[in-house]
Parts: sequence; structure tokens; C-alpha cells
Amino acid sequence: MRLKDIGEFGLIKRFQGKIKTDSSVVRGSGDDCAVLKLDKNNYQLFTCDMIIAGTDFKSTDDPALVGRKALAVSISDICACGGTPKYAVVSLGLSPNMLVTRVDRLAKGMFELAKKYRINIVGGDISSADKLIIDVSMLGVVEKDKLCLRSGAKPGDIIMVTGSLGSSIKGKHLKFEPRLKEARFLVNNFKINSMIDVSDGLLQDLGHILEQSSSGAVIYEKLIPLSREARGVDDALSSGEEFELLFTASRDQASRIINSSKYRFTPIGEIMPKAFGLRTINAEACTGRSFKTGYQHF
Amino acid sequence: MRLKDIGEFGLIKRFQGKIKTDSSVVRGSGDDCAVLKLDKNNYQLFTCDMIIAGTDFKSTDDPALVGRKALAVSISDICACGGTPKYAVVSLGLSPNMLVTRVDRLAKGMFELAKKYRINIVGGDISSADKLIIDVSMLGVVEKDKLCLRSGAKPGDIIMVTGSLGSSIKGKHLKFEPRLKEARFLVNNFKINSMIDVSDGLLQDLGHILEQSSSGAVIYEKLIPLSREARGVDDALSSGEEFELLFTASRDQASRIINSSKYRFTPIGEIMPKAFGLRTINAEACTGRSFKTGYQHF
Repeated sequence: MRLKDIGEFGLIKRFQGKIKTDSSVVRGSGDDCAVLKLDKNNYQLFTCDMIIAGTDFKSTDDPALVGRKALAVSISDICACGGTPKYAVVSLGLSPNMLVTRVDRLAKGMFELAKKYRINIVGGDISSADKLIIDVSMLGVVEKDKLCLRSGAKPGDIIMVTGSLGSSIKGKHLKFEPRLKEARFLVNNFKINSMIDVSDGLLQDLGHILEQSSSGAVIYEKLIPLSREARGVDDALSSGEEFELLFTASRDQASRIINSSKYRFTPIGEIMPKAFGLRTINAEACTGRSFKTGYQHF
Repeated sequence: MRLKDIGEFGLIKRFQGKIKTDSSVVRGSGDDCAVLKLDKNNYQLFTCDMIIAGTDFKSTDDPALVGRKALAVSISDICACGGTPKYAVVSLGLSPNMLVTRVDRLAKGMFELAKKYRINIVGGDISSADKLIIDVSMLGVVEKDKLCLRSGAKPGDIIMVTGSLGSSIKGKHLKFEPRLKEARFLVNNFKINSMIDVSDGLLQDLGHILEQSSSGAVIYEKLIPLSREARGVDDALSSGEEFELLFTASRDQASRIINSSKYRFTPIGEIMPKAFGLRTINAEACTGRSFKTGYQHF
């Protein structure tokens, strides 16, 4: 049996069943970040993301954008938990034949984003590799009462999303702005029941919330905010690496959020009891497809 | 100009000049771990290490040993700063064609070592890759007064090493035991002025201490504890990935350490003023070579 036979999520489940953690771990594997006890009022968030040439970007992509992306995906994970990013360490796999000017551009893209988000890059590791590999591990902090997990969605919650969906493949995955301002605005002013960033695809990431929250959901396709580059709603439903925030809140909170008009928050559906499953209602108002699509590494 | 023209350390210096950190960072890039403010009595340690098939291990090596090594190298970094490892996140680059049984063995080797050292594996990331890649980021904690850095060596300090050197290539790099007990014994009972783990090679790692401490050193080749597998002193001087601890303490502390007889600590030389440079005295007591050898990735 090979990895492609059990799939990425099959493998993750296989690992999770074998891992034990002690009482200092509030949330281990299975969310956007690990959540660790820090002090009286705060939790520490800890996450890692690896990107590899040929898998997560093209070898011909501008190294400045690649370096930027490596950091941005981890920032997005911290945002999804409601926190503020603080520190990062960076492991690089580099070819000895790589042009120094390209590495300089990579560093420039990364360091500029770090500066913008006030992240301290505090260490790293360099190894020799055939292809460019970047792994970023990030630490963040979140007030205990502002922590957002995948597991808190409740039937009746309104499902909302930031920005628009469907343009990852058109370059958004290299240029997206992590939704830190939006996330902090949400957790500072409202009660957010669950949150995740759209990295695998809207339906698949919603599926992660539903699984962890033991819930179902209905999504109204016509409500999904499409990017100009999206060819149709299917792109928006399945496109990974959008790095928008997908979150749920009670009907009352949702109406306050949508009326706040500070950022673009769009309601797209509702959390349902588990038995309902996950269904989308299409534009013709037919009871829609119940399907799951999105990105798996294998 | 290509990376191989400026070398691994040239690249690291290039990065370090561009990085700024805020006052919460006690020590950023340039030591075995980053050191971050945590609470009144403790610092947090943060480190990452990436290992890649073909560079850091062979594709034919037992995956259990490879998984073990991935975690052990980061534990060793925490030890070198005098701390205790606590949490790890793991990024994996895996081929879709990899046998599930091999991934299971990899996880087994890693999880067993995590259990032994009471490390919580709290998250991870999986990506598709041609070759096996493992990146481990680790958090540890160290009491403020027990923190060891590369920068604290003082002329007159005795240079000491744990265990024996020269057998990395014979398999030690896959099977070594991180020197956590030894490191904690040292920082709990003595004043250690500087410490590093031997990952690049004895002389090169000593060179890191000397550079950060603005000092020189003399090493007596005959005093270096050789592994049975070492072919001679050159192996011991240059062999990377030994993961022994190289540390310095005042003459008085050193004599107490050596007389403690609890673990194998061997004095091998003395810290000198910077103008002395780094010299080794060979077995015939000639004033020896002043050279630098060890591993660079390019």
C-alpha cells in the first residue's frame, strides 16, 4: 500500500492516532495551529508550513513572491486561530548552483512581509537540495477568550467568508494578503464560533470545520463571492490556497458583523445538524450536490 | 555568482545583516537556538532543522532511524543552549509512491524518541516531494541563569567535550543520543560559559564559539576522545553530525566538572585571546596546524 492509496488525510489520521500530548497542550494536531498554554491571559500558537518547487510554486516564479508566500501561509494559519504572529524560523533547501541574486530576492520578499507584519525572523537552517524548499515555523499569541478553532461551529451559525474566491491559480496563491486585520477585527469585536483559512478549498475546509464540530452545513452557491478570474462557482468551491478566512458566528453576531461594513464579509450559508451533511444549493435553487472537492497532496 | 561561490556561512551572514528583531528577542539567528523572553524566570528556545534524503541521510537508511534523527538534531540544539525540549511541529515532504509501511516506521522512530524525551508533537504539514524531506521545529525552555550561548567563552576557559568523536559517518549521525542529561547536569551544577553541539565538525563549531566570543583557542590533539571507529585525529577534528556538546568553563569549574565523574567530560584545550587564533597542538607537541575544516552544505 502506498501513500497515494490512503491519501493525505488518511495519513494525517494515521499519525494523529499515535500522538499523545500532556496537559500543557490545549490543542495539538488537527487545527490551523497548535495551541499551547502560555500565561494567565494568553495562549501560544505554533504552526509550520513547507512549500516545495514544482508542488507549491513553479521553479520559474519570482523568488521574491515565493519567499513572501512561504511566510504568508503561516501568518494565515495564525490569523485563522484569531492570533497575532510574532516569531518565525526558516529552513531552506537550496541548490548549490542557485544564483545568489535569486536567493537575495527570496530573502527580500520574505523580510519585507515580516517587517510589514512585525514578525521577528529569529533563526533558520540551510540544507543542500535539488529543488527549492522553504519551511517556515511560526509562533503567535492569542488572548484566551479570542481563540478560534475549527471545533466550535454550532447549528444555526451563519457561515461567512472574507474577500472572494476562485483566483488562486491565477496568481493569488503567491500574492495574497493574509487576513490579519480582518481576523483581529472579528475576534476583538464579535464572538466567532469557528474559523479556518481556505487552503485546501472552500468545501474541503468547511468539511474540516464540520468534522471537528460534528455538524452539517448548507451553502448557497449564488452567495459565494467570486473573484473576477473565477470561471464559475466550481472554482470557488474547490480552489485551494485562497487564504481567505472561513468562519461561523451566531445569527445575531453575523448580522452585526455584516453591518459593520469595515471589511468584506459575505454570508454564504448556515451550519446544520450533523445528519444534514454538507449540501450546496445551486443557482436554480435545486437542492444541490452533496460533494467534497479540493486539494490533497496525494 | 552562485551559492557554492559564497558558501553556506557566507549566505548565512548575508541574511543576518538584513534581519532586525525587537526587544523581546534575547538572541536571534546565530546560535543553536533563538532565545525569546518568556516569563520572569525563563526564556523560550526556538529552533528548526531540515533533513533531506541524499544530503543528510541515504534513501536506503531505515526510516525509523531517519525519523528519529530528524527529532534528535533539534533536541541537540535545545541541549546546547542548556534547555529542556518541550514541543515540536513536523513538516514532511513525501512521495505519493512511498510505501505506507515506511512512513509508519518513520513515525515510529520519531514518536518513540519524542516519548523518551517527553516532547509533545503538536502539529505538522504534509507536502508532495520527490525525495523524503523532514523539517522539525522545536520549542524548549531554559531558566534565565542557565542559558548557554556561543558567545560567553573567556580566555583561560577550559574547552571540554562530551562522549567521543569521529564516528558520525559510521552511523552515529543516525543513532546518537542527544546529550540532554549531560547538558542539564552541567547547567544545574556548574557555571558553563559557552556551549555548542558538534554538528559541523569540532574545529568548525569551536570556530563558531571563538567568533561569537571574540577569542582564540588551543586544542591538544592527543586529548581528543576518539571513537573506536575514528581512523585518526583528523576524523575527530572535522567530522560533522557528532552531536556531542562542546563547552567551556573556568579552570576552577572545569576541574569540578571533570572530578564529578558522573558523565564523560573530556578537557581538550583552552580558550586564548583572539590574537592567538585557533591552533591545534599535535601528538609530537609541535606547534600545530592552524586550520579550519568541517562540513558546509555548499
